[in-house]
Amino acid sequence: MGLQVVRFEKQGKESWGVVSNNQIIALKNTYSTLAQFLEEGAEEARKVKESGIGVTFSLDEVTVLSPVTQPARIVCQGANYSSHRAEAGLEATRPPFNLIFSKADSSLCGAYSEIIRPSHVQLLDYEIELGLVIGTEISQAVEVTDETLHQYVAGLVIMNDVSARDVQLCEGQWLKGKSYRTFGPTGPYLYLLDENEIALIHDLELKCFVNDELRQAANTNQLLFKPAETLTELSEIMNLSKGDLIITGTTGGVALNLSPDVLGQISSLALPYQQKLDLLVESQINNGKYLEDGDVIRCQIRSADGTIDLGEQVNKVVPSKVAIS
Amino acid sequence: MGLQVVRFEKQGKESWGVVSNNQIIALKNTYSTLAQFLEEGAEEARKVKESGIGVTFSLDEVTVLSPVTQPARIVCQGANYSSHRAEAGLEATRPPFNLIFSKADSSLCGAYSEIIRPSHVQLLDYEIELGLVIGTEISQAVEVTDETLHQYVAGLVIMNDVSARDVQLCEGQWLKGKSYRTFGPTGPYLYLLDENEIALIHDLELKCFVNDELRQAANTNQLLFKPAETLTELSEIMNLSKGDLIITGTTGGVALNLSPDVLGQISSLALPYQQKLDLLVESQINNGKYLEDGDVIRCQIRSADGTIDLGEQVNKVVPSKVAIS
Repeated sequence: MGLQVVRFEKQGKESWGVVSNNQIIALKNTYSTLAQFLEEGAEEARKVKESGIGVTFSLDEVTVLSPVTQPARIVCQGANYSSHRAEAGLEATRPPFNLIFSKADSSLCGAYSEIIRPSHVQLLDYEIELGLVIGTEISQAVEVTDETLHQYVAGLVIMNDVSARDVQLCEGQWLKGKSYRTFGPTGPYLYLLDENEIALIHDLELKCFVNDELRQAANTNQLLFKPAETLTELSEIMNLSKGDLIITGTTGGVALNLSPDVLGQISSLALPYQQKLDLLVESQINNGKYLEDGDVIRCQIRSADGTIDLGEQVNKVVPSKVAIS
Repeated sequence: MGLQVVRFEKQGKESWGVVSNNQIIALKNTYSTLAQFLEEGAEEARKVKESGIGVTFSLDEVTVLSPVTQPARIVCQGANYSSHRAEAGLEATRPPFNLIFSKADSSLCGAYSEIIRPSHVQLLDYEIELGLVIGTEISQAVEVTDETLHQYVAGLVIMNDVSARDVQLCEGQWLKGKSYRTFGPTGPYLYLLDENEIALIHDLELKCFVNDELRQAANTNQLLFKPAETLTELSEIMNLSKGDLIITGTTGGVALNLSPDVLGQISSLALPYQQKLDLLVESQINNGKYLEDGDVIRCQIRSADGTIDLGEQVNKVVPSKVAIS
């Protein structure tokens, strides 16, 4: 059975721990990065889980941090569930290419952190996603299959790929609109996979609630481009390192809802920015689903049989105290 | 006066050196990352340059490496010169937003490395760009002005932002098409700026030749979004660290040449991928400017008065030996 690992801060000290009976048992050693934890700490975590011996905290006694540490590459798949493709105005079927973009690693924050809405952002959206934590150095093309996936993926996390739709879609390149600080709640748990559990990656249930209303519900068996083929392709393009994060795309139920006509217009690089922004905002602002200050988002990912449980994120939206130019 | 710094490999050993009279004088100490060099090595480089004492090599006796080391964030500005905007089918004037995307750090390669064309790429293009090397940690919003720019920018490099136009433009998000390994020749020199030279950032001449034909020629005074305002905006969004790289966009003269109509069609997310690919390739493939195997690209950046000289890149295009799926 895999392990639920937590990175947390208590009285100014950052530690790693393992979850047992809804409590965190702290590891004795410190590991400054996720890569170091994967190399040196995973073994300690296993032993601590087995023995049950160590200083114990409840989750609400500590500040839970993102188990993915900076610096890390965050490589993102876009439009990778049919239900999200349809609501975004795209053809719902699997497209001829795997849409890849990236998110700044400084967007990473804890599973219970506040999501800070920049003052100029009108269309703030949520996106529950399964995150794959890379467990090895990839520096050349490799063929990854479901049989070898466990050699490349050390564990799983929930990430909420928070998105400023007005910035993301009207500027065309998605990095900025998805990269503001706190736009990447990650965790609470890093679920360290056992080799024999890897097949469950294809049968995880995702649920995202906003103010206790279920907005997104899906199963990872609906992913259009699967983890193994995605890693194969990424390995042909770029290097990935231990502790990097691949997020696999979100499912239907986000606030964004576009007709193909509106999508066509706002994505055209030949139309003026202001015209696109006005069209997008007008088509979206009153749909009642975009995030407002005070909203609370909860994200959960687990296998139907309960074997794998990545925990639950609870993040509140708050306004930025700083105006952005 | 600033310093021309070189990172190089000789007999399996990586070293840093400083250029003096067209020779490299090697530093005694080793620095494993650019951040470490900036922190601890810049002082040694200044002393070695002053004394002229050290083991000396000619540039062709060593393998010149990218002075920007991995891991590094590579944050890119797009469409930031009017001449390039016009040839890409965009309005030539400064747009209402600063277009930001990223490039994988594993695209970094040396200034004389081969550029490997992936076998499926039909439209391979060059883009000379001025690169700003970040000299300090930026972890919150800061207002950067021309007067304070030297606190944030440690030095300058040339980067060729090699781009697979068919991948980049037809998939919509630019990361993949710009990130293949060897798509980022960087150097040869890291030019460490003296504080009193910072104003010259606005008066650097860029030249890019393909097979000795001058294709791109511009001055950084034509940049639409300037370095200081760009760093101010980036600081409001994301963290940057010592040794990260900002590339400031390319100028007119690349192979890509689109009418606004073709641009509008290929950028629309509502049109089918294959239709866009066919349209793009048909409009481009015979224009005689895209890179072919064996082509040699030379990029130079220097100030008109010769004070600042970032050296010359010479990169040959070669076919990939590995087929990509």
